[in-house]
Amino acid sequence: MKEKRIYNFNAGPAALPLPVLEEIRDSFLNFAGSGMSIVEISHRSKWFDDVINDAAARTKRLLNLDERYHVLFIQGGASLQFCMVPMNLLKDGESADYVNTGTWSAKAAKEAKILGKSVKVAASSEDKNFSYIPKNISFSSDAVYVHITSNNTIKGTQWAEFPDTKGIPLISDMSSDIMSRRFDAKPFGLIYAGAQKNIGPAGVCMVIIRDDMLKRVPATLPSMLKYTTFSESNSLYNTPPCFSVYTIRLVLKWLEETVGGLDKMEEINRKKGAAIYSFIDSTEFYRGTAEPGSRSLMNVTFRLPDEELEKKFIKEAAENNLGGLKGHRSVGGCRASVYNATTLEGVETLVDFMKTFEKKNG
Amino acid sequence: MKEKRIYNFNAGPAALPLPVLEEIRDSFLNFAGSGMSIVEISHRSKWFDDVINDAAARTKRLLNLDERYHVLFIQGGASLQFCMVPMNLLKDGESADYVNTGTWSAKAAKEAKILGKSVKVAASSEDKNFSYIPKNISFSSDAVYVHITSNNTIKGTQWAEFPDTKGIPLISDMSSDIMSRRFDAKPFGLIYAGAQKNIGPAGVCMVIIRDDMLKRVPATLPSMLKYTTFSESNSLYNTPPCFSVYTIRLVLKWLEETVGGLDKMEEINRKKGAAIYSFIDSTEFYRGTAEPGSRSLMNVTFRLPDEELEKKFIKEAAENNLGGLKGHRSVGGCRASVYNATTLEGVETLVDFMKTFEKKNG
Repeated sequence: MKEKRIYNFNAGPAALPLPVLEEIRDSFLNFAGSGMSIVEISHRSKWFDDVINDAAARTKRLLNLDERYHVLFIQGGASLQFCMVPMNLLKDGESADYVNTGTWSAKAAKEAKILGKSVKVAASSEDKNFSYIPKNISFSSDAVYVHITSNNTIKGTQWAEFPDTKGIPLISDMSSDIMSRRFDAKPFGLIYAGAQKNIGPAGVCMVIIRDDMLKRVPATLPSMLKYTTFSESNSLYNTPPCFSVYTIRLVLKWLEETVGGLDKMEEINRKKGAAIYSFIDSTEFYRGTAEPGSRSLMNVTFRLPDEELEKKFIKEAAENNLGGLKGHRSVGGCRASVYNATTLEGVETLVDFMKTFEKKNG
Repeated sequence: MKEKRIYNFNAGPAALPLPVLEEIRDSFLNFAGSGMSIVEISHRSKWFDDVINDAAARTKRLLNLDERYHVLFIQGGASLQFCMVPMNLLKDGESADYVNTGTWSAKAAKEAKILGKSVKVAASSEDKNFSYIPKNISFSSDAVYVHITSNNTIKGTQWAEFPDTKGIPLISDMSSDIMSRRFDAKPFGLIYAGAQKNIGPAGVCMVIIRDDMLKRVPATLPSMLKYTTFSESNSLYNTPPCFSVYTIRLVLKWLEETVGGLDKMEEINRKKGAAIYSFIDSTEFYRGTAEPGSRSLMNVTFRLPDEELEKKFIKEAAENNLGGLKGHRSVGGCRASVYNATTLEGVETLVDFMKTFEKKNG
């Protein structure tokens, strides 16, 4: 059965690869010959062990992680990580550096402060409305970790290269660009990513943590808020969000076996980015909000000459099967989120629509 | 397409109503005409607002909750509630009573103690291996709340009637029997239930909280660990576990519109319980582990004459499309979980198999 589908530019939850959705649908009443749905099988079964182990193994292969790294699946989204990171890794008397590149990094620092932790803002791009990624940052030599947000969904910026922290463990919220490109994971002590943008549905956060970070976890935390609870139980201390982990596994399988890995994925994402940014740069009608060297390949934020035209643009785009183009409610404007599952064809269709809209309204 | 399905007696994740699974499958590529999957739509969309509001409204109708109660959807399962409850509701210098009816109530009390909270075990059935529910309990007059586990999945016991706390707010983990029967919610200050047994898939915990409990929440907690964060945002402070909430909504719709409400559901569950317990009582071969007055209508725990026969029973049952009959790994034996979605036909098929197995091996 052929379903009517739109081009989905949502910022998250976002488009997922069509073959993944089809596999979920086709096996939904009978998973792997079990006679049960994936949502009905026990998390203690061989079936689910295979799912969660494969999801972790594919993560390690795709990101080229060495044996010091553990892949955990935790509920609560990146927002829960904002407090779990300092709760687990920052002792009283110690301090951590945070780079403020917008809403989500600010929230991460705020939750650390709520806990009474010592946090220093090592750099910020607030002076120019978070339209760029700070460069040449001096980090505190005594910082226990440096926290960054690798991609900023609201402002449409992304770290092109990660900062040199002179050996201080990097911690990054990679919710909106994990698995979108190849990068060297070695400087990272911890990476976390809410799944609902690039790797799966809402309801699970992937946490990649290195051995030396696990050693910092205090014994006195509630069980569900300790990273060691998850690392020591293969994320099966209590019932995990099985369906979300299962979908991540299918997305990673698609990434490895259909797309062909992260180099290939990055190549496609660069083509998508080039298609839309080069068009935006060729006209005065649309105006990108991020500085060119800091532009995100995941979230393309732009404005039209006025807000009325923006409303009209979003409305007419939706009528043409191009959905999710409204900017974040906190900043307005337009945003095309072009995560891994968004195809080049989708981006080209959007650019064609933008051209037509400009001709009619420019 | 007719799928091969088994009779699923898993303790959780567990069987879900077949019409719910079919609706998810049939609309999985195009939810409500959106041209997107339910896992691809924005949690800030009208589509998802309708889903989460309907799930909450049906909960309030089914449980006959008055306007003082708020229905929240929180990640992390009941296990996260074990720490969130005391973190939010129990101040330093105050004390709460816990009734220990087995593994899960003990874990709830343990997490409160990890937080340094004052907890008193008001009653326990540990003396008889948790095979019964304590009666005539004297609660501490200064207890801020009384915590119970309404149904004990591992030991197969269930509170037939809730204890009289003389006005002290009751708090219950109802993960394994919520929506299985009619009860008076008024004595309850808070009810929580991991969805993966009676109301949905893993990945979301339903929390029902009363106004006076919300007033106890300290301002200084991390945002994701405060009940007020969820009550003030309609559970949309950050991205909720959309798919799990959506499935809960479908299950509750089925409960209201197909089953006909909780009175009807309870009637069916009593018939299922009678079918299996009356058979167990009629033979020496099978032996129920819970005391008759404390037996669970959700988890029927029983032993066979020896462990070899139990292994054989579980294996041959599985070969006859009766799955999930192994007891919890901490206690062994056999367990048939017969939640709402398990049909009377399924229970009768199980009883027939038990009879045949006894004839061959008794």
